[in-house]
Amino acid sequence: MPAQQIRLDINLAVTTNPEVKHLMHTSRLDDYQKMISDYHLEIEKEKKERKIRFQELPYQDTSKLKALKKEVEGKFDTLVVLGIGGSALGNIALASALLHSYQQISNKKGLRLFVTDNVDPDWFTDLFDVIDLDKTLFNVISKSGGTAETMSQFLYVWEMLVGKYGDKAKDHMIATTDEKSGYLLDIANELGLRKFVVPEGVGGRFSVLSDVGLLSSILIGIDIDELLAGAAAMEKRCQSDELMKNPAYMNALLHYLYDTQMGKVISVMMPYSSTLKYLADWYAQLWGESLGKRYNLKGQEVFVGQTPVKAVGPTDQHSQVQLYCEGPNDKVFTLVEVEKNHKDISFSNPFKGNAGTDYLDKRSMNELIRAELHGTSIALADFERPVVKVIFPEVNAFTVGQFIMLYELQTAMAGKLYQINPYDQPGVEAGKKATFALMGRPGFEDEKKRIETSYSFDYRFIL
Amino acid sequence: MPAQQIRLDINLAVTTNPEVKHLMHTSRLDDYQKMISDYHLEIEKEKKERKIRFQELPYQDTSKLKALKKEVEGKFDTLVVLGIGGSALGNIALASALLHSYQQISNKKGLRLFVTDNVDPDWFTDLFDVIDLDKTLFNVISKSGGTAETMSQFLYVWEMLVGKYGDKAKDHMIATTDEKSGYLLDIANELGLRKFVVPEGVGGRFSVLSDVGLLSSILIGIDIDELLAGAAAMEKRCQSDELMKNPAYMNALLHYLYDTQMGKVISVMMPYSSTLKYLADWYAQLWGESLGKRYNLKGQEVFVGQTPVKAVGPTDQHSQVQLYCEGPNDKVFTLVEVEKNHKDISFSNPFKGNAGTDYLDKRSMNELIRAELHGTSIALADFERPVVKVIFPEVNAFTVGQFIMLYELQTAMAGKLYQINPYDQPGVEAGKKATFALMGRPGFEDEKKRIETSYSFDYRFIL
Repeated sequence: MPAQQIRLDINLAVTTNPEVKHLMHTSRLDDYQKMISDYHLEIEKEKKERKIRFQELPYQDTSKLKALKKEVEGKFDTLVVLGIGGSALGNIALASALLHSYQQISNKKGLRLFVTDNVDPDWFTDLFDVIDLDKTLFNVISKSGGTAETMSQFLYVWEMLVGKYGDKAKDHMIATTDEKSGYLLDIANELGLRKFVVPEGVGGRFSVLSDVGLLSSILIGIDIDELLAGAAAMEKRCQSDELMKNPAYMNALLHYLYDTQMGKVISVMMPYSSTLKYLADWYAQLWGESLGKRYNLKGQEVFVGQTPVKAVGPTDQHSQVQLYCEGPNDKVFTLVEVEKNHKDISFSNPFKGNAGTDYLDKRSMNELIRAELHGTSIALADFERPVVKVIFPEVNAFTVGQFIMLYELQTAMAGKLYQINPYDQPGVEAGKKATFALMGRPGFEDEKKRIETSYSFDYRFIL
Repeated sequence: MPAQQIRLDINLAVTTNPEVKHLMHTSRLDDYQKMISDYHLEIEKEKKERKIRFQELPYQDTSKLKALKKEVEGKFDTLVVLGIGGSALGNIALASALLHSYQQISNKKGLRLFVTDNVDPDWFTDLFDVIDLDKTLFNVISKSGGTAETMSQFLYVWEMLVGKYGDKAKDHMIATTDEKSGYLLDIANELGLRKFVVPEGVGGRFSVLSDVGLLSSILIGIDIDELLAGAAAMEKRCQSDELMKNPAYMNALLHYLYDTQMGKVISVMMPYSSTLKYLADWYAQLWGESLGKRYNLKGQEVFVGQTPVKAVGPTDQHSQVQLYCEGPNDKVFTLVEVEKNHKDISFSNPFKGNAGTDYLDKRSMNELIRAELHGTSIALADFERPVVKVIFPEVNAFTVGQFIMLYELQTAMAGKLYQINPYDQPGVEAGKKATFALMGRPGFEDEKKRIETSYSFDYRFIL
């Protein structure tokens, strides 16, 4: 196995012992090989017909991004991404995994990155105290330009830029949006902004390896060639329909069966790594938004979907592991291990005879964090809670690229298993409609009336 | 109602319509008044007998903390807390809620705060690139001194300080630990460190209003008098046993009934505020670790506990709300509203006729975020998913103090309802034991043998 290959370890997620009640017996996996093979053919067909396209992204031409990097080099020290959801989570995850942990204070590899994925006025305005506008480049990302949070931020920033730089304002703004149409495309054209593309046929939560995530990555100093090479390696590795050789399909099946047949309605993603913690956020969107669906492919009401929960190890051992071990057996766990850190430190104990520190003498922090990961996985296994491990030989652009493609392919297979459409998100429309009504947007008058008549508030119920 | 009082709005968590299947009928609440009153008496008795003590914290003497602030003023620009779990989450939450959003870059109110609540070597060592050791004060927090993560960090930092400052190293270190005994107390005494107290009878997750959370708070510029006054105000307000007047009891009952009788096994805490998002982390420990228990008070095996999930609005509308609306109806939601921001901005739309921006013209960001909160709550209600709102008139030390005490008291009552002990955490021992065994700590040889014989790894199951 190549040293730089991430691995999926399911030893603690399955059992060969028939007396273990809450773990899946290994023989069950064989029962599903045929179904997986059939779904594999469907997926391959959809790829060929370009109904699924995210797996094409590792092979894209990145010359325009590289030209941009050269063009802006030396002119800016900060990049602010105006984006939310799929236009934010991947960018944040990559910066956190692959840059200095405090890159917002100082990033020697490229621009500092800030992602404004919320419309909290206190938090949003605080940003302008810590950036130098002269040296700041903005990247507004929205496929349609209909995203209220992003567009409101854009209006505010644009007014500020025009006020300060007049005709030169557009030097500070790049738009990443649909290639053919949309509110943001219209604005970008009107203003003559530089444009990058949210590709067709790739949903927001699958878009991190497109311009959506790559533009910020390359400008902050991530090796995007390595990132894409990692994704390509995983894409190739997962072309097998054999469960035992395809980590994406295996992990999809395990999670599906644990959810639907063994009551593990929650999927906990727990990297033992602070720098990977935002990959868990990225995963939470991918898994939650793709699989949480009211209707199946036949149009029957099913209300399915496993709830993703983000945790960080060992930190959450001191917060959530009590519940994970002793609470309801309704979770499947993914612990992410980093075998080798870039920097490691060791401890020396001058307090001889102090049992709180003695055993740490001459041990390293990497040993400690990995012992904690294994300790927790043993404890969960003792309580018969399934644990999958994802093992990074080390964290770099190549392995992170693999991780991203692994989970995207896993989600595609999970969509098949649940028999739902993993690529849409009809359930967010209701909230948007109600928000627009409450904001008084023209065309939403009926919704406003409906809300006012359906929901009468009773002051007794405000404590 | 005083303007600065936080409010609990349960209009969308209960219904008067008998045809609504998934929401609790208001009449159900009355059925439980008697039970709540009985448990209230038990809690009051335990308070009097000092078996529960966290509610005493608002009334403590803070003169030693104030003296410390004077003593260190001007000498340092950064505080690093070495702590994890209950020794970290409250500190992080308070800094995030009450300081500048980028206080780690620049904090005009006091010291910058970093909390090292993990043992990721890359992340931990990166810290030393962005602090000036000469101007950094460390606060190591552990009740027993047996916390591996914290003590290992302490060893590393202490060696560094001694190497650089010799006998003066102790000027840079404060220990917050048990008053009477423990590994850290022994070390603090041996070294002559300044000491603060993790109070007796107050568990880690209930300790934020003790020296554990107040020391960092006062040094970074939070008004701890206001914080404690807020907590005191809530403590007094929740002395009523009347459900309709006691938000802590009402919220405990609602969550308990939704979990145990209506299958809402997940509690989503979703502040519509970036600055309050770490209060959701703090809540997740409080709720998860207190209620996730294998045994009830009679010693019967019950495996109970609602799983807390942290989300942020509107951000997670673009990630989790698809699942929240269309996935399984297994969640109860808490949306946190901030009525008035400290700073607000408004938008002006120069792109007339562009439907993506037109409706934002002359509207403010506060209007937008609150419309989104209400829009999402309506969408969730349309799908018959219960929504509780916690309303902050504004975010300040006084209201945050109320929030903390509200949820601590709610957890105490929830412990009664679940009939478990909300103050212990026996389930974390298994993982600690396994970790110590894997680290080769003396005394854990048997556990090591057990692990090696119980868990045989099969390379077939590593993909």
